[in-house]
Amino acid sequence: MGSMPSWKESAHLRRQQQYETIPPSWRLKSIPTEFRDTRYVIERSGLLTARELDITGTIGAGKILRKYEEGDWTVEEVVTAFCKRAAIATQLIGCCTELMFDEAIAQARELDRWYADTGELTGPLHGIPISLKDNHQVRGVDTTVGWVGLLGKPEAEDGLPVQQYRALGAIVYVKTNVPQSMMMSDSYNHVWGQSLNSLSRALISGGSSGGEGALIGARGSLLGIGTDIGGSIRIPAALQGLYGLSPSIGRVPNRESARDQKYIVRPVAGPMSNSLSSIELFMEAYSTIEPWKIDPTIQPIPWRYELALQPKDRLKIAYIVDDGVVAPHPPIQRAVRDVVRKLRQCGHEVVEWEFASSHRAAYYELWVKAVLADGGQRCADLCKLVDEPLIPGMLVGTPETALSADQKMALSDEIWEYQAQYLKKWKDSGIDALVMPVTPWVGMRPKQWVQSQQYVGYTALWNLLDYAVLTMPVGLVDSMVDDPGRDEAWKEYGKSQTRGFSDEFNHALYQELWDKGVVQGLPVNVQVVTGRLAEERALAIGKVLDALP
Amino acid sequence: MGSMPSWKESAHLRRQQQYETIPPSWRLKSIPTEFRDTRYVIERSGLLTARELDITGTIGAGKILRKYEEGDWTVEEVVTAFCKRAAIATQLIGCCTELMFDEAIAQARELDRWYADTGELTGPLHGIPISLKDNHQVRGVDTTVGWVGLLGKPEAEDGLPVQQYRALGAIVYVKTNVPQSMMMSDSYNHVWGQSLNSLSRALISGGSSGGEGALIGARGSLLGIGTDIGGSIRIPAALQGLYGLSPSIGRVPNRESARDQKYIVRPVAGPMSNSLSSIELFMEAYSTIEPWKIDPTIQPIPWRYELALQPKDRLKIAYIVDDGVVAPHPPIQRAVRDVVRKLRQCGHEVVEWEFASSHRAAYYELWVKAVLADGGQRCADLCKLVDEPLIPGMLVGTPETALSADQKMALSDEIWEYQAQYLKKWKDSGIDALVMPVTPWVGMRPKQWVQSQQYVGYTALWNLLDYAVLTMPVGLVDSMVDDPGRDEAWKEYGKSQTRGFSDEFNHALYQELWDKGVVQGLPVNVQVVTGRLAEERALAIGKVLDALP
Repeated sequence: MGSMPSWKESAHLRRQQQYETIPPSWRLKSIPTEFRDTRYVIERSGLLTARELDITGTIGAGKILRKYEEGDWTVEEVVTAFCKRAAIATQLIGCCTELMFDEAIAQARELDRWYADTGELTGPLHGIPISLKDNHQVRGVDTTVGWVGLLGKPEAEDGLPVQQYRALGAIVYVKTNVPQSMMMSDSYNHVWGQSLNSLSRALISGGSSGGEGALIGARGSLLGIGTDIGGSIRIPAALQGLYGLSPSIGRVPNRESARDQKYIVRPVAGPMSNSLSSIELFMEAYSTIEPWKIDPTIQPIPWRYELALQPKDRLKIAYIVDDGVVAPHPPIQRAVRDVVRKLRQCGHEVVEWEFASSHRAAYYELWVKAVLADGGQRCADLCKLVDEPLIPGMLVGTPETALSADQKMALSDEIWEYQAQYLKKWKDSGIDALVMPVTPWVGMRPKQWVQSQQYVGYTALWNLLDYAVLTMPVGLVDSMVDDPGRDEAWKEYGKSQTRGFSDEFNHALYQELWDKGVVQGLPVNVQVVTGRLAEERALAIGKVLDALP
Repeated sequence: MGSMPSWKESAHLRRQQQYETIPPSWRLKSIPTEFRDTRYVIERSGLLTARELDITGTIGAGKILRKYEEGDWTVEEVVTAFCKRAAIATQLIGCCTELMFDEAIAQARELDRWYADTGELTGPLHGIPISLKDNHQVRGVDTTVGWVGLLGKPEAEDGLPVQQYRALGAIVYVKTNVPQSMMMSDSYNHVWGQSLNSLSRALISGGSSGGEGALIGARGSLLGIGTDIGGSIRIPAALQGLYGLSPSIGRVPNRESARDQKYIVRPVAGPMSNSLSSIELFMEAYSTIEPWKIDPTIQPIPWRYELALQPKDRLKIAYIVDDGVVAPHPPIQRAVRDVVRKLRQCGHEVVEWEFASSHRAAYYELWVKAVLADGGQRCADLCKLVDEPLIPGMLVGTPETALSADQKMALSDEIWEYQAQYLKKWKDSGIDALVMPVTPWVGMRPKQWVQSQQYVGYTALWNLLDYAVLTMPVGLVDSMVDDPGRDEAWKEYGKSQTRGFSDEFNHALYQELWDKGVVQGLPVNVQVVTGRLAEERALAIGKVLDALP
């Protein structure tokens, strides 16, 4: 190793160990160099049996429960199939961190024995494999969150969220990759490396729950838990065409992520999946244990089933195509307009959301200042542990952005004022939901995000306001209609206007991606915003959108 | 004025102005020197008419509403009567700060006109005079919170809580006195001076909502709003034999107090009254405007009427007589035991609360550290404005107690751990409520509190845990039974044990008060603790206690 810094050695060693955890029969002989859809590569690898492909191709955790009840599948074979597929996926796209296959499969066997003995499932998530973003505290493994300095400190016990998921019957089998600091939309760090997009290895999987998004996108998981302080659930979900719920504070336990991200704006945890029904199953299941009697930060609000039903009434929906800060790539604008058109065809009232004009200031003057207020102290401390370098370009503070206690107090007040203004606009408008883009870009190459001065205002605004948001797929990039060379408005816009560096970067990015031929078929998601603690309504409106023609 | 410091001049001038706001016909010719019950002094002063005595003697805001509906009273005469009585009270016991009589009476006339025209009340608090702790932001008057440096800065508009109270029909007519910093149980400051106890001018009214407690105790108000971060509603309520509700965060708006007290433990606002029915009326009324649609910090939980009904079932109640840190004065211990005995007689299950053993560490290691964590910076800044001295002995930090961002983070984690432990104990115990003392002392002379190293752990624990607590009167000090000289256990305890300075001080205090002959007839309150967001149950259990034989 010679002059290699010791942090590099530690990280290298850990990744070797990770590879050795993968049973030899689950290892890929070679990593293909072309950038195919990972699902295709996995399914053609010859490593998964037809039955394992069948299991991991399941859409909807509820279907797995029915298979258990009908005796078609055992928990052991389901968990093994997902372990195996996750192991293959991580070789291709670096989506996993801690692999806990042996323990997971042993637990699966126990559940099978229990079910054979009693004829009853152990809980509403009986035998459902659940993947967790790396910041979850899981007994026996590290919680590095991508920091080399946190390697080799296995947790003595599960954090409270993990305890609760296990109590519901879920089986924890992998943790998933994140960006250093969790403050960028590109999940790479010095321990676990780069997480790539499951649909195109030329592109990033997003962040900070990027490993989670990539794993679910590759069907190495059908239900995972991410966390979100500015879009960290929604951006990876969008880049992989998944469903993700970023709830208000207090609906899903977020103990561990809250410990890492003690900003004025607080992070939330939420479910990610390839189906809305799995998101709903998770939310229903979690509520059954009355978690507010266990976790003092959980709202004492049971899951309100009736509010999550697909509404029959005429809805009033607001929409944003472009918030005026960074213009979304053409397929994203088109996707929102398509949703608007279809909603109108179905008889709903749809209005443009004019208060979007406040978003720019809210993002730069409130959210950004809040997340930079610690002056980057926590990250600096973590780097110092092993002289690990900080990745430049992340949304991490510097001594210049640090706020004093008084300044933080004043900023909290300003945030509250904005929240109160927004609440009034929202209430006065009478809308049921707001539909809008997630990111203004459809894809990005690895390590490009940190050069982009990227704007996460489309998503971060809702963390600032603590509103529930569902992200969901509504379409795909279609090179027949989304050619930037044929989009006169887009070309013209790029020539005649400039809104600053982030917007210019984003405008040029679409052309670059187009020229490289990597955009065809990429998913396009929208956000469905429904207000504070309105998670049930987010799902209800999600069902309406899913049912559009 | 010569060499008088300018802050003294400003304060002197402001108090003169306050006195001049009182109409000459409402002024006392002389202030009696003996320490009589203020109610007696006011009622014998000859300044109030029989009808005004009748109005201000009303128990229950609901009764006033009925009088309006029946045409017996006008809002103008009710508001005038309370303005007058408040004006007299403040001459005796320094309970008020800003006097807003003219505006209040003008508003009252408007409501009378409205009612005459429409036959309808304007809201569920139509014409109810409401007094507000000085930290409320009210248009046209200062929000000094007792700081000389904040004089002469009248508010351009009402804060959100005040806007909402007015929208409900309530009439704001006075603000009430507080301690400098709001971090002691004795309400005095350099602007407004000393607030005395309404039942005995030899004693203090408590704090930090001490002016509020004194005013309601003197019947210069029948409904007021205090705030509480460690007992600031409950201690003054207890010292004046009143009802006070210290809710969990998010049931009553606390925007202004939260702005002044940005600690790791956060303050709450809550109603204080001489009747439980007024507390309930306030909570019901506030909920009717769906305040969570207006104030982003309010919980979206409507008032749950059915949970506030007096329960018919057998209850399980825990109790604490003495938490092992500071032994309560004999009448307080007796009062708790009396409640326990009566609850048992009525068939309820009553158990001693063993987890009280954790309270000492929770108070000193968590709550105290949290409230001192800013190192006293905010108070130092406020003093600096006009070179006003800081009153020594308050619960205000020093540079030595300041915590770094990391230390605050670690402290927040510890608090959460304790909250989670407590929640488990509470849940496992199956109790409906916990009954216990409020302060360990029945009274104190002015300026004695700051010498006492006083322990507010009996109350502060519930702020740490964010539990709803009702305080209510359950008895009086009775010199026939509460003689410390005849209480062998109390005497023995003082000789054989010492738990440290606060406890010794408290033990000696009772003898001192006894010797001065000021304890007979002082009220004794208990706390009824019911858990997070269990305000309705607190009222329900309060009804049970009120109905005990």
